[in-house]
Amino acid sequence: MTFSAKLAGAVERNNSLLCVGLDPVPGRLPEGLPRDASGVAEFNRQLVAATCDVACAYKPNFAFYGALGAAGFEALAQTIEAVPDHVPVIFDAKVGDIDSTAERYAHMIFDELGTDAVTVNPYMGGDTVAPLLGRADRCVFLVCLTSNPGAADFELLESSGRPLCEHVAERAATWDEQFEGECGLVVGATKPESMARIRALAPSLPFLVPGVGAQGGDLEGAVTAGLRGDGAGLLINASRSITYVSAGKDFAAAAAEAARELRDQINQYRGVAQSG
Amino acid sequence: MTFSAKLAGAVERNNSLLCVGLDPVPGRLPEGLPRDASGVAEFNRQLVAATCDVACAYKPNFAFYGALGAAGFEALAQTIEAVPDHVPVIFDAKVGDIDSTAERYAHMIFDELGTDAVTVNPYMGGDTVAPLLGRADRCVFLVCLTSNPGAADFELLESSGRPLCEHVAERAATWDEQFEGECGLVVGATKPESMARIRALAPSLPFLVPGVGAQGGDLEGAVTAGLRGDGAGLLINASRSITYVSAGKDFAAAAAEAARELRDQINQYRGVAQSG
Repeated sequence: MTFSAKLAGAVERNNSLLCVGLDPVPGRLPEGLPRDASGVAEFNRQLVAATCDVACAYKPNFAFYGALGAAGFEALAQTIEAVPDHVPVIFDAKVGDIDSTAERYAHMIFDELGTDAVTVNPYMGGDTVAPLLGRADRCVFLVCLTSNPGAADFELLESSGRPLCEHVAERAATWDEQFEGECGLVVGATKPESMARIRALAPSLPFLVPGVGAQGGDLEGAVTAGLRGDGAGLLINASRSITYVSAGKDFAAAAAEAARELRDQINQYRGVAQSG
Repeated sequence: MTFSAKLAGAVERNNSLLCVGLDPVPGRLPEGLPRDASGVAEFNRQLVAATCDVACAYKPNFAFYGALGAAGFEALAQTIEAVPDHVPVIFDAKVGDIDSTAERYAHMIFDELGTDAVTVNPYMGGDTVAPLLGRADRCVFLVCLTSNPGAADFELLESSGRPLCEHVAERAATWDEQFEGECGLVVGATKPESMARIRALAPSLPFLVPGVGAQGGDLEGAVTAGLRGDGAGLLINASRSITYVSAGKDFAAAAAEAARELRDQINQYRGVAQSG
């Protein structure tokens, strides 16, 4: 099954464009969980169980697992296994390296960890993306325009009359056609006008949208600017604003409630009926 | 001790600008070693023991360890421990993410793994580099201009009359002044003219130079173009052309011989006396 088909299934089943980011720090785990890699795995298991009927995808960020060493790697693998088969997992590591190295990343991310998609930093160019984008039924989300202040340093530098991020979007649309795998874009929620231009350059690609919640992006603006013709094509990511709502024993129920609210808010801007 | 001081010590002690890349694939390990993570750790231990009097630094690339899962993570930690204290280790992972994530990478790379330097992808801008560059006695090598064909896609796009990679070099020189840690640049060996311009923009920064050996870069051109005023400032990296010279039981001795030859060839272009 293609990534798009798997994602569309989860979007429809859960009536959701919400992607839940799983970026746990041991020191912020709720009471009652061990503050180590085993606690992280248990935290994630409970979060996934509580939110898998309102999320269209999950996105663990590698840094939060790598920081815990080999045990963190195990916790990551356990987290990915805890996600139901019909919900896609996006491995967020923003990798990017020469072909022989990128092939090793493809092996780690797709074969060993068994995830459906990966975030890739495009800076080093097409041949560094190819080994990941060459995998059938997987998706590569190229970092295009991010929601942090530093986006102004390079992503928005003008070249031939348009910002660098738009060159990336244009290439991504081409690569999506050329390769066996699918291509998507990471487009932050903080600049809706820029997102609208990127949508025009890449009308069919899925956008992974960080920056709502803790980063303070403009949710309504992002949904309006980024929505694809079919009323989907967006994965609105929220991490801390869902997973850390409660530090008590009710953390999973509180996360589910926050996820449901955000899912419904996105659907309101999206103009679809609430599923109650 | 600053990264520069530690590196200068190793450069002088071993009369060397050679950085040995440790990127092992189990299937290519020499006869007699188990073709798994434990074999990788043993391979690296023997390589380091055989080359630590001719290398000025080691550079393990994370993809080759992550591809082996949690056991690969252990093999990476064992590899880093096997390097003598006076020789710096550069962790090659080309990371780059928002500040809260970059802080987790800093913890993993500097606190947990205890390496001296890291490669960072600059695409997302200054605030994504800051948490890593803020660490005293550590160095951040920003990916600037790489040796692969895809460098033409974005790194060489012109903005305000100069290629993107030169904007990165200029920022790196500024950030090196601003932050507690030191900044270096990754500059491939395949484009000496470009390297000369980048050297002019960042006269004091160390350059990590991939692309000689298996990637076919121009060693003499790179040394001539990139050498700093003090006759150092370059870490010429070679991986496969050293570590895979022999697939037999003599692999470590063969690697040492190849490393010594390359070290001496670099020194010849550098214009320093051979140490025999």
